[in-house]
Amino acid sequence: MTELRLAPDWQMEHWLNVSSPVTLASLRGRVVLATAFQMLCPGCVSHGLPQASRAREAFPVGDLAVVGLHTVFEHHDAQGTPAALAAFLHEYRIGFPVGIDAQDPAGGVPRTMRAYGMQGTPTTLLIDREGYLRVHSFGHLDDMRLGAAIATLIAEGAMPALRDERAGTAGCDDDGCRAPADTLA
Amino acid sequence: MTELRLAPDWQMEHWLNVSSPVTLASLRGRVVLATAFQMLCPGCVSHGLPQASRAREAFPVGDLAVVGLHTVFEHHDAQGTPAALAAFLHEYRIGFPVGIDAQDPAGGVPRTMRAYGMQGTPTTLLIDREGYLRVHSFGHLDDMRLGAAIATLIAEGAMPALRDERAGTAGCDDDGCRAPADTLA
Amino acid sequence: MTELRLAPDWQMEHWLNVSSPVTLASLRGRVVLATAFQMLCPGCVSHGLPQASRAREAFPVGDLAVVGLHTVFEHHDAQGTPAALAAFLHEYRIGFPVGIDAQDPAGGVPRTMRAYGMQGTPTTLLIDREGYLRVHSFGHLDDMRLGAAIATLIAEGAMPALRDERAGTAGCDDDGCRAPADTLA
Amino acid sequence: MTELRLAPDWQMEHWLNVSSPVTLASLRGRVVLATAFQMLCPGCVSHGLPQASRAREAFPVGDLAVVGLHTVFEHHDAQGTPAALAAFLHEYRIGFPVGIDAQDPAGGVPRTMRAYGMQGTPTTLLIDREGYLRVHSFGHLDDMRLGAAIATLIAEGAMPALRDERAGTAGCDDDGCRAPADTLA
Repeated sequence: MTELRLAPDWQMEHWLNVSSPVTLASLRGRVVLATAFQMLCPGCVSHGLPQASRAREAFPVGDLAVVGLHTVFEHHDAQGTPAALAAFLHEYRIGFPVGIDAQDPAGGVPRTMRAYGMQGTPTTLLIDREGYLRVHSFGHLDDMRLGAAIATLIAEGAMPALRDERAGTAGCDDDGCRAPADTLA
Repeated sequence: MTELRLAPDWQMEHWLNVSSPVTLASLRGRVVLATAFQMLCPGCVSHGLPQASRAREAFPVGDLAVVGLHTVFEHHDAQGTPAALAAFLHEYRIGFPVGIDAQDPAGGVPRTMRAYGMQGTPTTLLIDREGYLRVHSFGHLDDMRLGAAIATLIAEGAMPALRDERAGTAGCDDDGCRAPADTLA
Repeated sequence: MTELRLAPDWQMEHWLNVSSPVTLASLRGRVVLATAFQMLCPGCVSHGLPQASRAREAFPVGDLAVVGLHTVFEHHDAQGTPAALAAFLHEYRIGFPVGIDAQDPAGGVPRTMRAYGMQGTPTTLLIDREGYLRVHSFGHLDDMRLGAAIATLIAEGAMPALRDERAGTAGCDDDGCRAPADTLA
Repeated sequence: MTELRLAPDWQMEHWLNVSSPVTLASLRGRVVLATAFQMLCPGCVSHGLPQASRAREAFPVGDLAVVGLHTVFEHHDAQGTPAALAAFLHEYRIGFPVGIDAQDPAGGVPRTMRAYGMQGTPTTLLIDREGYLRVHSFGHLDDMRLGAAIATLIAEGAMPALRDERAGTAGCDDDGCRAPADTLA
């Protein structure tokens, strides 16, 4: 158990199945399932992507956003073009938005894959309603646990707003006693 | 919105209303309401402590732990001894565990108060089932919002365990395609 | 603990603070706090209505609907007209929708009050996202417990749709074994 | 959407994998997944029971109880004895408690199956922490939706206790105005 970090922004060079780029900020308030895949990765085709499609069907759009991240780190010629990916999505009837991860001119894995520290594909990410990265898992996940994890995050309502900290001077009033600033350092 | 941090451990020099020290680790799995107060702080006596007592009555012990933190940063002679605090707790019929925050020989506010960056008393802390500090608020909170916040955290079930990342070598198998280690750096 | 019943429809003769009648069906998907009151009921004016206003401020409109039900069962001349109620709502700055419960020509308490079996005013009703009546309480409720109850119902996400029962004939297939209809009666 | 009913008590004639009968009352406070099956029902063996075992592994015992209900309505000679069922459970490594539904001397389906109005096997029941029957489904369910449904019910914390209705006489006091009993009928 460590600190809980906000999901880093995506760095995509192209989006398919959607008219404008999908930003994490635009998904705030919903749970996000993001599946990083490659179209020539057998475990992605047989498991990761069908599972994402099942999640898309099982949960309301208002509660869960499902996004694909095409994080190509090998066979760039065969799977690296938007046209190839478009054909793949058409054949596999994948209708949710898919972004193409931006390649780094310096080489290595693409930028979003690097920002998240992904080890390979498929990688499943779950981001909560407030933008925290709650699940990051490489490889096969079973449907029941993933369904439970999504539902658990959906059930996490937004915390009611409490109050803003007000500035003030040292001393006591009805609200409380404030310590002098120089004792807090 | 920033990173979500684990609540720092308490550093108490004495506990009342309980036979052994209350550690955060021992409360893991329950939501924790910790009210930092001073017995001579009017806002604590009239509002913070009665509110903590109402929370103690409103929620089951298995779901919510209520703890007082006596964070004395002024009038040490009058309110700084366990005997004075014991008399106070008796008169005000406060039955939940109360720890006395450890004074720092170097001066300034006591240690737990400093570790949390509290500005004064009363300060209300809410820690979730997994140990994350979710609310830190100085001064008056209204009962309805605090009750809602506690219930929201109680409703956050533990996320189901998904899977452990397995180590592996680069290449594809049924589980997925792993990138070579030297491309990930 | 008994059966959980769907909240009966309201039977109102007039609505204030809203351009068209508020039906329970139109609130489906949100939690509903309905406060039944009379403008000449001291406990309503000092407690029930201010509490409803605090709830209105504490929770998002998308999660919680707050509605007043003017269930007049005494002093009809003084408090029974829309004009009197409109003046009252204006003076007390109550901005949420308020319906006037329909009087029964046969006498007795008004219709909605009767349909719910209310004993008097104020009566607090909480209806969950699916329309079930979950709380029905006459008299004073404390803010912390009411806030917690509302948050608990808000956190109850809609159950994911599972499957429709399909009709079929007796015998076994891949899906299961169905008993002959004449053995089920 | 209709009334929500409490799950009827089970009427079992024998239990396996457990030292004493499992009653619904003893499971109150936990979510219950009960899978009704027959050992010679192909859909139960290939799907319903393995799914129940996956649920048993995916969720903590403190949150979810998993129980099998052997509801034999055909082939009584082959599958109707505790010895046959014990052998089956051993071979299929089913470790959760399984009850044998009580046959009705008058014939027809066994008693628990009848009390629940089950159409056949497998039938999946989900009972919430308060004992309400929330899901009743005959045939195949997919893992993701079932996992989500279980997690959704687990996340439904117990509603905080509000207040007991107090008896009283007609008229107004600080608490509210009570209608005369003869106007309520």
